[in-house]
Amino acid sequence: MSIVDVINKKRLGFALNNEELKYAFNNFMKGNITDYQMSALLMAICINGMNDEEIYYLTDIFIKSGDILDLEKITGITVDKHSTGGVGDKTTLVIASIVAASGLKVPKMSGRGLGHTGGTIDKLESIPGFKTELTKEEFLNQVEEVGFAITSQTANLAPLDKKIYALRDVTGTVESIPLIASSIMSKKIASGAKNIVIDVKVGKGALLKNKEDAIRLSGIMRKIGARYKRNVETMITYMDIPLGTSIGNALEIKEVINILCEKEENYLVELSKALASKMIAMGKGISVLEASKEVNELIHNRSAYNKFLEMIKRQGGNIDKLEVSTNIQEIHSTKKGHIIDMDAYEFGKLSLELGGGRITKEDKIDPSVGIVLNKKIGDDVEIGDVICTLYLKKGASFIDRDITTFYKFENSNTNSDVKVMEESKSEKK
Amino acid sequence: MSIVDVINKKRLGFALNNEELKYAFNNFMKGNITDYQMSALLMAICINGMNDEEIYYLTDIFIKSGDILDLEKITGITVDKHSTGGVGDKTTLVIASIVAASGLKVPKMSGRGLGHTGGTIDKLESIPGFKTELTKEEFLNQVEEVGFAITSQTANLAPLDKKIYALRDVTGTVESIPLIASSIMSKKIASGAKNIVIDVKVGKGALLKNKEDAIRLSGIMRKIGARYKRNVETMITYMDIPLGTSIGNALEIKEVINILCEKEENYLVELSKALASKMIAMGKGISVLEASKEVNELIHNRSAYNKFLEMIKRQGGNIDKLEVSTNIQEIHSTKKGHIIDMDAYEFGKLSLELGGGRITKEDKIDPSVGIVLNKKIGDDVEIGDVICTLYLKKGASFIDRDITTFYKFENSNTNSDVKVMEESKSEKK
Repeated sequence: MSIVDVINKKRLGFALNNEELKYAFNNFMKGNITDYQMSALLMAICINGMNDEEIYYLTDIFIKSGDILDLEKITGITVDKHSTGGVGDKTTLVIASIVAASGLKVPKMSGRGLGHTGGTIDKLESIPGFKTELTKEEFLNQVEEVGFAITSQTANLAPLDKKIYALRDVTGTVESIPLIASSIMSKKIASGAKNIVIDVKVGKGALLKNKEDAIRLSGIMRKIGARYKRNVETMITYMDIPLGTSIGNALEIKEVINILCEKEENYLVELSKALASKMIAMGKGISVLEASKEVNELIHNRSAYNKFLEMIKRQGGNIDKLEVSTNIQEIHSTKKGHIIDMDAYEFGKLSLELGGGRITKEDKIDPSVGIVLNKKIGDDVEIGDVICTLYLKKGASFIDRDITTFYKFENSNTNSDVKVMEESKSEKK
Repeated sequence: MSIVDVINKKRLGFALNNEELKYAFNNFMKGNITDYQMSALLMAICINGMNDEEIYYLTDIFIKSGDILDLEKITGITVDKHSTGGVGDKTTLVIASIVAASGLKVPKMSGRGLGHTGGTIDKLESIPGFKTELTKEEFLNQVEEVGFAITSQTANLAPLDKKIYALRDVTGTVESIPLIASSIMSKKIASGAKNIVIDVKVGKGALLKNKEDAIRLSGIMRKIGARYKRNVETMITYMDIPLGTSIGNALEIKEVINILCEKEENYLVELSKALASKMIAMGKGISVLEASKEVNELIHNRSAYNKFLEMIKRQGGNIDKLEVSTNIQEIHSTKKGHIIDMDAYEFGKLSLELGGGRITKEDKIDPSVGIVLNKKIGDDVEIGDVICTLYLKKGASFIDRDITTFYKFENSNTNSDVKVMEESKSEKK
């Protein structure tokens, strides 16, 4: 077998068998197959797709590239959650704090930024001292004692997925349902939780641009879960606008704190509560309505906020030293009108350009940069109003494009019936 | 503009504009875009194709990445020839020797091995001392004085094509009509000849597997030629069996000598004469019949052979020191019968495996290895007969597969009407 034969087979649209997939991916892991050969294979997979068997084999190869975390030592019920990522998505931090405060155990592995979207680990690394790579022992002990730990993929859990993930990010091979499914599910299976809720985002700001893709991805992930005897539920949520009011790593940590202290009220807050309720209902075997009441109480009495602070302290972070850039550019509207839409993808790309994401695999993220959205859908704007604020790299020049074009205006003053949220639950397994 | 956006656009099947192509390819040339990003883009081009405008833009980018050779200093008429490559194809060396002996000027730039097929430069490098990278001055002076020079792509002529060519070879992105067309035509335009004959090979042993692709490639190349005011003629030739009796670098040089000394008589010899006749007819403005008579005379009186030796000596080669491996494995037939077909692609891959080609970009070729075909189509074989001879790397173990399966037998002794050659001329421009 040669890698060029395997690539050619997928280029021509044929399904690869388990041996061929093992040959290509395991040898890539060992360094026998180069980045440029793997990226060609990944592109062929993106365009020509994979059938269910291929996706299952690939997931299994990812899982077997490392250890499967044994959570037997943890007392109580383990629940895990994953979001497929989107611009300004900080739900993981909010939700895990709430669910851990409810008494369930949340062993959370998270990823780094992928394309124009951010990653939870990147956000946490903006907190000085915060340690994102825990050993297995550190991770398990913390989940047992704090109820909640967040680690990046360690070298021992699905290390091959980590390597592939970094390559996809910079080669235009992110938007592939088979690759997204095997990446997510390998991490979820390897990280050991028996109950898994997956938030599949769809829309302009998300990895998936349409609902059909989201439904297909959900179905594949539930099938993979069943093969490994895990309870998997998915929730398809819309993401046409950036989630919350900020984009950028340190800025988003600040926003999480505001949410947990009840200083924000928007779609992001509602979405976080809905996902947390679903996880608690699944873990405790209670109704979503009951779980929802518990969620509100855990936020209101600051249990969730205190759990968040406890996790950060335990992982070495000093929240008081969180810093955002002081090189600030206020963007003034060049239009007058009522905002009816905003382009999450453009904002995501702008954040990338400011230094908040990666363009090549080796790039370092600047945690202090980002965007605060001063005006959002539903707001009325006058010419000259500050619509958003850019936090630029130290010493960087101001952006001289017209950012107002990321917003869509309606000139009339009549209230338009704006769809800011639509949620569709996938059927239960 | 970002490279990931450009890759994504092609992944989704859109045409790239000139600015996007320039951005991606020129930045790759400068080293600002990585191999793994370029291979992803090349794969997307392979699968989703390119329209005529994109192919023309890409060719132009390749040409402008270096100098366009000015052949004004050369007295007489310049003719150039290109074959799209195939297993055991050594026609270039035979043809250029004949055409130069006829008095026309042959400034020849050649490539290295691509996939399972060999390259003329690799073959010449098997001659100890032979210099394949000439400076522009050395090249022009030699063409003027000897009538004939062969150089690999120098750093100054289409250097970007050279870089892309090496990457395609090892990433399963060889078989793409747009990429083949722009690669060939950029070299032909940049190397300056006004008259160009292109031999487009099709069949199991060639880069192109079917006639429709060969016709499409021919048409695109003629269109590109017209944009640059060059006379381009194409000839579609079949290549279902390996050309000639040997595969491998030093072995093929030996075979060229045998052909020029009239010690061989087969399809390869006929094909070489046909192409040489076409070039001479084009260059001298005479009929193909007249040209054909001249070709036979130039071989018979050893003018072509002497021209070949003159070129080798001028480029520093010592033909007396040409060496083939002494680690020889004779392959004995496991079947009895009449050979009706043989698989050129399998023989090409076997030669690659023996060390005669490249698997990754950094691989060194072993010029002494290869295969001599002792039995060919039309021969009767008994069990135990030597059907081919493998020349293995020094110290390498014998191959333990059944090579007899590369041949197709007919058990009866009746003579089958074997199609060993079919030639189709593309219409003139």
